[in-house]
Amino acid sequence: MGNAIVDIIARVDDAFLSRHEQVKGAMLLIDADTSARLYDDMPPAIERSGGSAANTATGVASFGGRAAYIGKVHDDQLGRVFQHDIRAAGVAFETMPASEGAPTATSMILVAPDAQRNMNTYLGACTNISVDDIDPDYVADAEILYVEGYLWDTPPMKAAVLKAMDAAIAGGTKVALSLSDSFCVDRFRAEFLDLVKTKVDIVFANDAEIMSLFEVDTFEAAVAALRPHVKIAALTRGADGSVILTPDTEVSVPAFATEVEDTTGAGDLYASGVLYGLTNGHSYELCAQLGSLAAAEVIAHLGARSEVNLGELAKKELDL
Amino acid sequence: MGNAIVDIIARVDDAFLSRHEQVKGAMLLIDADTSARLYDDMPPAIERSGGSAANTATGVASFGGRAAYIGKVHDDQLGRVFQHDIRAAGVAFETMPASEGAPTATSMILVAPDAQRNMNTYLGACTNISVDDIDPDYVADAEILYVEGYLWDTPPMKAAVLKAMDAAIAGGTKVALSLSDSFCVDRFRAEFLDLVKTKVDIVFANDAEIMSLFEVDTFEAAVAALRPHVKIAALTRGADGSVILTPDTEVSVPAFATEVEDTTGAGDLYASGVLYGLTNGHSYELCAQLGSLAAAEVIAHLGARSEVNLGELAKKELDL
Repeated sequence: MGNAIVDIIARVDDAFLSRHEQVKGAMLLIDADTSARLYDDMPPAIERSGGSAANTATGVASFGGRAAYIGKVHDDQLGRVFQHDIRAAGVAFETMPASEGAPTATSMILVAPDAQRNMNTYLGACTNISVDDIDPDYVADAEILYVEGYLWDTPPMKAAVLKAMDAAIAGGTKVALSLSDSFCVDRFRAEFLDLVKTKVDIVFANDAEIMSLFEVDTFEAAVAALRPHVKIAALTRGADGSVILTPDTEVSVPAFATEVEDTTGAGDLYASGVLYGLTNGHSYELCAQLGSLAAAEVIAHLGARSEVNLGELAKKELDL
Repeated sequence: MGNAIVDIIARVDDAFLSRHEQVKGAMLLIDADTSARLYDDMPPAIERSGGSAANTATGVASFGGRAAYIGKVHDDQLGRVFQHDIRAAGVAFETMPASEGAPTATSMILVAPDAQRNMNTYLGACTNISVDDIDPDYVADAEILYVEGYLWDTPPMKAAVLKAMDAAIAGGTKVALSLSDSFCVDRFRAEFLDLVKTKVDIVFANDAEIMSLFEVDTFEAAVAALRPHVKIAALTRGADGSVILTPDTEVSVPAFATEVEDTTGAGDLYASGVLYGLTNGHSYELCAQLGSLAAAEVIAHLGARSEVNLGELAKKELDL
């Protein structure tokens, strides 16, 4: 479940980023006017479906897993692009598009020469998701409900997430939460902490996010603070690999070596591998390796959706 | 001047192409219903501005030349994408978007494993271009009016082209015509022949198109038939390079070696190099080399717009 977004992607130089006061690695929420102004100044771009949890869902499907997505587009050209791409990737997507209100969300993704990206997101139709879009039986049918933290940014989105989480808990579906972005964690620290302690079984985060959540300065301190509260945590550390943590185990795997073109989607696709692994009964070590493999594929090209069949890639690279 | 199109690009296998009776290398015109059906069956895609002459114009600008574009989009999301991309590439684009009628044109470009592409184009708003979109003074200000043959497909488009060509001739602007596609030449052979003989100074074509125009079986026979009628012909022969022909000279240059990912835009970008060269007083040999260089860049990646600054590339590769 997440914000249904079409990405508008361009490479820019560092001068462009400082001119527009862009913070590398961050996701900035912008309004329609700011979005139009930034677009005016942006180089020629390509459009590609995105959205954090949507990227994750398509990755799960690419591994050969079953995935369904909940998110709101408008009934417009970019909404139809989003719909097409996620369904063509093999993900069920039944959320009704909005016929009124704001257009489908877009995120201008600026990729710097060092492959770091920053995102400027106009949420548009995403803010029209509501509790009416959540069918408790549909959620309870899933093995895992995976929610992106980005959904916390408006009250109707939040209400829809809580309805979905409660339906999951009632139905025996595990609840997974991605912390999404360290600035997002800053905005909602108390609420995220409460969620992690009361509703969430599986936490996905990178080092910056999890340290921000507990307001500590080291990854080790964050791990110690998190451990009592979750069944599973899948924590990424960029080039230093990732860690899967349970109350009594800790499994570290290295990152896959790759040429990095655009870091967009690294965390999303890492989650794909872990979710596919967990729902298919694989060891934590293999889950983390599947995550690393998918992350390495997506950062080797522009755009946050995998460009190869991840199931075949896993067969080749991990002998799965 | 051309059809203003947003490309929807995906790699497909040969089984997909035969299932949809697709002819490799060709441009097929389809209606809105057929377009929707094909899209439903298409893999996840990326969107990128395209349109033959628009690609050419952005290439001219990327070389450092001055270019303006005439073509019709609708005032919708994809129309704004097209507008943004061509202007951000440095091309003047003042044609008023249509506020009524069909949406912005799209072309589903299917790239086969051998890098050949075929295109399924829904012309949409392009068919709303009219003589009212042509300002004779604007056209007469240019050094060369470059028109794509694809514009011949509907009567209002044709009328707009003829008005532009007549304005060019009256104002001392040279007229260039791209034959676009051998199937397009098949549809309009008599009219294209008449244009070449009466209004066109510079012909752009590949070997298949020029042989189709004169209904001959060899490239040499086509050259002999064409030569009396044009001031300049720029003829491409795929991996065999290209030839620039005048009434008394013939200059052949080889193709630049490159890894071919997607042949879309090869002819368009070849024309960019030749047009930039001609309007900047370069020799025919250098014009053809600039064309080959730009074509080699665009076929090395997905999408029909260059991804590097062609002026800098020419400086490096051709010591320009």
